[in-house]
Amino acid sequence: MQASFKTIGVLGRREQTDLVEVLAPLLALLRARDVDVLLESELAELLPGDSPELATRDAIGARADLVIVVGGDGSLLSAARTLAKYDTRVIGVNRGRLGFLTDISPDEMAEQLPAVLDGHYESERRFLLDAELRREGSVLGRADALNDVVVNSGNSAQMIEIELYINDVFVYRQRADGLIVSTPTGSTAYSLSGGGPIMHPTLDAVVLVPMFPHALSSRPIVVDGSSEIRVDILERNSIHPPVTCDGHSSMRAAPGDSVHISKKPAGLTLLHPLGHSFYASCRDKLRWSNALVN
Amino acid sequence: MQASFKTIGVLGRREQTDLVEVLAPLLALLRARDVDVLLESELAELLPGDSPELATRDAIGARADLVIVVGGDGSLLSAARTLAKYDTRVIGVNRGRLGFLTDISPDEMAEQLPAVLDGHYESERRFLLDAELRREGSVLGRADALNDVVVNSGNSAQMIEIELYINDVFVYRQRADGLIVSTPTGSTAYSLSGGGPIMHPTLDAVVLVPMFPHALSSRPIVVDGSSEIRVDILERNSIHPPVTCDGHSSMRAAPGDSVHISKKPAGLTLLHPLGHSFYASCRDKLRWSNALVN
Amino acid sequence: MQASFKTIGVLGRREQTDLVEVLAPLLALLRARDVDVLLESELAELLPGDSPELATRDAIGARADLVIVVGGDGSLLSAARTLAKYDTRVIGVNRGRLGFLTDISPDEMAEQLPAVLDGHYESERRFLLDAELRREGSVLGRADALNDVVVNSGNSAQMIEIELYINDVFVYRQRADGLIVSTPTGSTAYSLSGGGPIMHPTLDAVVLVPMFPHALSSRPIVVDGSSEIRVDILERNSIHPPVTCDGHSSMRAAPGDSVHISKKPAGLTLLHPLGHSFYASCRDKLRWSNALVN
Amino acid sequence: MQASFKTIGVLGRREQTDLVEVLAPLLALLRARDVDVLLESELAELLPGDSPELATRDAIGARADLVIVVGGDGSLLSAARTLAKYDTRVIGVNRGRLGFLTDISPDEMAEQLPAVLDGHYESERRFLLDAELRREGSVLGRADALNDVVVNSGNSAQMIEIELYINDVFVYRQRADGLIVSTPTGSTAYSLSGGGPIMHPTLDAVVLVPMFPHALSSRPIVVDGSSEIRVDILERNSIHPPVTCDGHSSMRAAPGDSVHISKKPAGLTLLHPLGHSFYASCRDKLRWSNALVN
Repeated sequence: MQASFKTIGVLGRREQTDLVEVLAPLLALLRARDVDVLLESELAELLPGDSPELATRDAIGARADLVIVVGGDGSLLSAARTLAKYDTRVIGVNRGRLGFLTDISPDEMAEQLPAVLDGHYESERRFLLDAELRREGSVLGRADALNDVVVNSGNSAQMIEIELYINDVFVYRQRADGLIVSTPTGSTAYSLSGGGPIMHPTLDAVVLVPMFPHALSSRPIVVDGSSEIRVDILERNSIHPPVTCDGHSSMRAAPGDSVHISKKPAGLTLLHPLGHSFYASCRDKLRWSNALVN
Repeated sequence: MQASFKTIGVLGRREQTDLVEVLAPLLALLRARDVDVLLESELAELLPGDSPELATRDAIGARADLVIVVGGDGSLLSAARTLAKYDTRVIGVNRGRLGFLTDISPDEMAEQLPAVLDGHYESERRFLLDAELRREGSVLGRADALNDVVVNSGNSAQMIEIELYINDVFVYRQRADGLIVSTPTGSTAYSLSGGGPIMHPTLDAVVLVPMFPHALSSRPIVVDGSSEIRVDILERNSIHPPVTCDGHSSMRAAPGDSVHISKKPAGLTLLHPLGHSFYASCRDKLRWSNALVN
Repeated sequence: MQASFKTIGVLGRREQTDLVEVLAPLLALLRARDVDVLLESELAELLPGDSPELATRDAIGARADLVIVVGGDGSLLSAARTLAKYDTRVIGVNRGRLGFLTDISPDEMAEQLPAVLDGHYESERRFLLDAELRREGSVLGRADALNDVVVNSGNSAQMIEIELYINDVFVYRQRADGLIVSTPTGSTAYSLSGGGPIMHPTLDAVVLVPMFPHALSSRPIVVDGSSEIRVDILERNSIHPPVTCDGHSSMRAAPGDSVHISKKPAGLTLLHPLGHSFYASCRDKLRWSNALVN
Repeated sequence: MQASFKTIGVLGRREQTDLVEVLAPLLALLRARDVDVLLESELAELLPGDSPELATRDAIGARADLVIVVGGDGSLLSAARTLAKYDTRVIGVNRGRLGFLTDISPDEMAEQLPAVLDGHYESERRFLLDAELRREGSVLGRADALNDVVVNSGNSAQMIEIELYINDVFVYRQRADGLIVSTPTGSTAYSLSGGGPIMHPTLDAVVLVPMFPHALSSRPIVVDGSSEIRVDILERNSIHPPVTCDGHSSMRAAPGDSVHISKKPAGLTLLHPLGHSFYASCRDKLRWSNALVN
């Protein structure tokens, strides 16, 4: 048995529909145990009268032994980018619809969560990507991604022309709508829609998926997770491509800039109930069980 | 033998590199024949001293029996959108790199063009799409496309949610980066990068290609060319998606708008030298002859 | 209103599980109406005591105004190959699982079938392909396909090298596992698994889908339904590739042979209940309604 | 600098066209150096009068410090399956057409090979797969693959139904033409034609690529190279699927059998000239440099 948890953080996105219907029984469940609970401040208004200690996301990351994220995969993605630097453990409770990351459903919470809190869980290490925008040697911006970093034209009427380097070795010059750089965690998200492979969450690898490439023979490339990836935005581009991390556009590159993408030293420790199976999530979410014709 | 041509228009894009190196011998070739030449006004500065009659693109469309477009496929696409309404014949001369639409190369011009002018040619009818943006019953904008109409989020960080109707029959509700509606002419361009099939240029059909669709089972759909296609931008979208025709963003939709796409009554009559083969262009441009391994 | 039916044939595959559970109420329903029923002989043993007139598949094709096929799409495919030459009308009743071709479910049969028999139906024309194997000018064999003709190596350890001609125009020489030639009807079957587009059932077109092609830029090609397609099995092949029609291997080619594929003059008239929608079948069978993530 | 080589083996496939044109200068080059040469016995007849010591493939594997394979990637694949068990170093000389594995061209041989023999080379470890066919607990057969193991129906008219397990965890039950299990080395071969990703040769991973899967959402899956993969041929299959290793069908499974696939302990040490780049091979062989349109 693994060590149990004393201080439990609870995070979520206030604006999600019906969040309180999961949050209230969750807090009741925690209150019944000998643990300290830290609730994300912005969730307090959803629970008038109910008053666990309130804290910011960062404070929770710093103090909690375990953080429970309530919501969908998007909520967990968002929390993970903050929590990764505190090296805390994270588990996700969904709102009725299974996620790849949030795999405890409200119906099973009363049964599965106490077991996890007692130390009966599986632990999985997920890495994040660090995306750094550089111009003439200086760093203009930096952002983290648990799923993917996307460099694209940001514009439906134009392609972007890039050069790709891996560990300083030239890979290709490419005209395309853009490039997706995805972790195994992200391989079941945007990358998959773009034709990328599914990668098992524990694989130490990154996939590079060209978006609508000009060259029909350009295909997804899987490289070691420790690879240093560099995307040069060629000077000849007239566009200013956004750099998007987990769907958030935080930086805008200019022609001549480079985007450097590498694995972050700190990662996320994601917990699952015992018996969790990544492939079961795939079967459910990707409808593998439903064949085309009879 | 088919009728020969008396008035010949010459179009091109001034800013293209080395255009004059094709333009000058072309005009010399035409001057040696008993034809009237109309040169697009903006090209005059490329040919100081040389003075065929100058005219606007529209005037050329109205008066010429045959229009020769010099440049790449992009130049011909652009010209076609203007010329379609005049129902003139069009032929393309490239600048050394074979196009799908511009299939006379400068080297072969001296041999192939006189034959075409003498009436020895193949004629192919290409249709255009009409894209109409409607809001609450009124038409906000309209544009033409010889290749494709693209409705997408215009934004790398968000998906667009649409409903697709064909001849008023519901097809699907879809979350994706967008949707490409392509003619056979466009089937070897953007649509192909997105996984659409190649369609023979004379096929009376349109293909609908989902862009990075959420549902992995969403595939390109080919429907009759006379289909009335309607893309409803759902109210729940927070983005204002651009509507792009042949790569030009001419309209911006709002949530609740509809984009209506249908075949234009007027089409383009594209000429080719005798012996032209669409599949030869494919073999050359798509490198079919080059196998993966030995 | 369209003409109603006097003589009704009933076909099916005896070995299908639980066939009698659909067959018995179907025959009861027909017995209650003023129609003559012809039952396929081999089904008689499923219905001891129950005795409509028995007939062979061919006799039913020749005499019936309408043929009801009970079973899955495979049963209807099989029946269609026989019935096409009699130009009779066909409708499919499934055994509880919606098919693309068999769209009346047992639960709805009591409601929908009488309406169809009264002349309230939609009628759709489906064409079949004729595949002819030729060696040195003489025809070695011929088979029909409602879905697809497949020429492949028939052998997991070798590729086949072919040349493709459409209307006697050379398309490509290709090394691949094989080639699928599919009708619109077949476009939601094997062709779709191989990356082919969905084609609306009424489109007059054929798609050619390369199977695991050596050249990564080889893509599905859609051509007019009236195209004459010729697949030359190059002399240099050492294999004897089977020619498969709707999944049945009926002919085996040798190096140097040609397979000629074209639309059959006779087609199939497939009936649907009023309100039938091809896209509804797609949504259901391809699970379009189920998105990847929330 | 790395250790140089004293005993050099030379392998090839006698039946390859023009092999002697590479073989003769290669042997001359080796004769000029202070090394012992072992020539594969079957190549002797190509070089009458020229007489290095002859040896079998196995004897060469056992005795040589370095084996030079002359031919295409197929020749090296074949040699590798024998040589892997001797843990010798291998390098490939092609016959004028670059391979992914055979990257010294005849033109560069005189320059690059002496450098390699002097110890100036890059060394890359490639792993092989072990495929084992089991029936009711006993092992019926075993084969090695440097590229891929393919389990398929071996029959164009039927699909195969399998269950896939990875490290004894159930992944899916699938109806498809078959399944490709590929190493990084094989990821640029058959797997790539089937939609698999390119994997860098040094990645410790295996990709599972479904062949024409019934479920459209079934996609390639990349897992750790040390995974134990099990493919159960369901009892309900009526076919006897071949198990193909690097394109050679060496075993035939029956319904109820299992194919167990795992990494072999012994691998292949593949040498390259200094400055070798996997991505340069991709650019050349996959024509990445050639864009679709201008």
